[in-house]
Amino acid sequence: MLSEFALIDRFFARRAAAAPSRTAEGELGIGDDCALLAPRPGEMLAISTDMLVEGRHFFPDIDPEALGHKALAVNLSDLAAMGARPQAFTLAFSLPTADEAWLTAFSDGLFALAERYGCDLIGGDTTGGPLNLCITVFGSVRPQDALRRDAAQPGDDIWISGTLGDARAGLGVQRGEWSADANDTATFRRALERPEPRIVLGLALRGIAHAALDLSDGLAGDLLHILERSEMQATVDADAVPRSTALRRLPPEIQRRCTLAGGDDYELCFTAPVTARAAVEAAGREVNVPVTRIGTISALQTAADRPAIGWRDAAGAPLTLTLQGFDHFHAD
Amino acid sequence: MLSEFALIDRFFARRAAAAPSRTAEGELGIGDDCALLAPRPGEMLAISTDMLVEGRHFFPDIDPEALGHKALAVNLSDLAAMGARPQAFTLAFSLPTADEAWLTAFSDGLFALAERYGCDLIGGDTTGGPLNLCITVFGSVRPQDALRRDAAQPGDDIWISGTLGDARAGLGVQRGEWSADANDTATFRRALERPEPRIVLGLALRGIAHAALDLSDGLAGDLLHILERSEMQATVDADAVPRSTALRRLPPEIQRRCTLAGGDDYELCFTAPVTARAAVEAAGREVNVPVTRIGTISALQTAADRPAIGWRDAAGAPLTLTLQGFDHFHAD
Repeated sequence: MLSEFALIDRFFARRAAAAPSRTAEGELGIGDDCALLAPRPGEMLAISTDMLVEGRHFFPDIDPEALGHKALAVNLSDLAAMGARPQAFTLAFSLPTADEAWLTAFSDGLFALAERYGCDLIGGDTTGGPLNLCITVFGSVRPQDALRRDAAQPGDDIWISGTLGDARAGLGVQRGEWSADANDTATFRRALERPEPRIVLGLALRGIAHAALDLSDGLAGDLLHILERSEMQATVDADAVPRSTALRRLPPEIQRRCTLAGGDDYELCFTAPVTARAAVEAAGREVNVPVTRIGTISALQTAADRPAIGWRDAAGAPLTLTLQGFDHFHAD
Repeated sequence: MLSEFALIDRFFARRAAAAPSRTAEGELGIGDDCALLAPRPGEMLAISTDMLVEGRHFFPDIDPEALGHKALAVNLSDLAAMGARPQAFTLAFSLPTADEAWLTAFSDGLFALAERYGCDLIGGDTTGGPLNLCITVFGSVRPQDALRRDAAQPGDDIWISGTLGDARAGLGVQRGEWSADANDTATFRRALERPEPRIVLGLALRGIAHAALDLSDGLAGDLLHILERSEMQATVDADAVPRSTALRRLPPEIQRRCTLAGGDDYELCFTAPVTARAAVEAAGREVNVPVTRIGTISALQTAADRPAIGWRDAAGAPLTLTLQGFDHFHAD
């Protein structure tokens, strides 16, 4: 068994030091009591933290390389949703045993993604204990460019990047809730294990989108966060929510459940004025990420109105859906 | 059982919002994908993250109010060791059950300390799972003022704040390794559960001390980090290491074990030039924290020399000690 310090040094600190140095004067990484970090001039640090627990956010048999990827990806996704440029991250984790093969694969997945986005490991903590990963990520953004949840305006279109529901479909296959052929199962599993943070889209949407967030707990629950923070309502065409060809091969009611309340999508949901439709589509083309309009923001009509989503089908008829976002204390 | 969002709102977000707002223009706290934070003008953010796991860093029966205090205190201690002023923190935790009485006490302990140091909760994550607390803390410091581990100079005195060993003594009492009377047991337990981060001392030492770190894993192991980063050696008078009256009532060999390799002290170990002795003592008096000189830094003499600590007794005679810092993968 490696000691804690040898473990940090071998799998993390050395690789962190080997990453291309983009650091400003005075910046300080791993090895002191604190890292020292500053945002770019005129910008602020966008900060987000996520904790992943075995058995709840991933299966015990997950490929450790995929886990390394996903642990950072879900955090980068929060930066994407703010329109922030990744800069650095800290990693704290507890591990039952310091298995070298596991750590090699985990750190490979982690650093491959970190290096792709120029995001340096600047600190961390390791301890024994049930497997738990806590990453805190730092990006840089001008405050006036930040894509906040409270910025939706009446009349805004509601947009979604990529497709929704594949991760939830993959979870359902693993749980035996439904089945799919080998190809579709692989598609779903990839969505579940290797989400791609929409960093480049988030950056491209600065100055175009109003409000944004990333979809981690399911569209129905997450969009409600925008509505609550912006004090708005929304009308959404449930059938317009983009989905993969693989998901379209599952029964319609499963498609709807996966796309609207699935969770683990890590796509962006954002609002933008009608006048920006061409700009949104151009931004999506520029960064090669599909963007799809699914609905409209509207003001609350009376003082008694509450932020809520009115679901419609493709014909525009109202749908009554009982949907719930993925709540970790109400895990299904 | 409260849902995750109700829980965050009730115990954390509302209290975070109730804290005095010291935030600069554009700053953004809980409720969006990311918080937005900037250091003070001309300063950088000092960042540290620590993870606390039940059964390893604290006992399952720990008073949750004390746990809330300690979880933040050990992070603030890292800011103290950099000479940084606390600014904000994020809290991610996994909990087996969302017990309201437990959460009330935990958040009471957490926010009492946070408010005392003007440190705002700006974000977090909660999930179900084995009890695990991960805090990332942010302070602000001018890079030229930061008390780094690599800044020890030949001839520097080595100083310790407060007293060492009481937390380890308390652990020993709880484990039945040794016993103490009720008063001393209470003293030890308080040291173990309610460490006081040396923030004000760290700030007072800016411009005076050279190198510094906080003692979390035991003096023998932690001082070695300064020596390794600074490429220096040290001579330390093992009997000069400050200890409480309560600890002095335990057998000498237990005193030595607790003070030199105990861990969980959260006192500062720092170096300063001989010419700064009066300034160090004045800084200690100013902030009402005892400071004690325990040894001297020296340069490596030959290329084959390795950073190491030479232990001496009160008479100056060499001691051969087999000590090991508290290593979480070698838990004793």
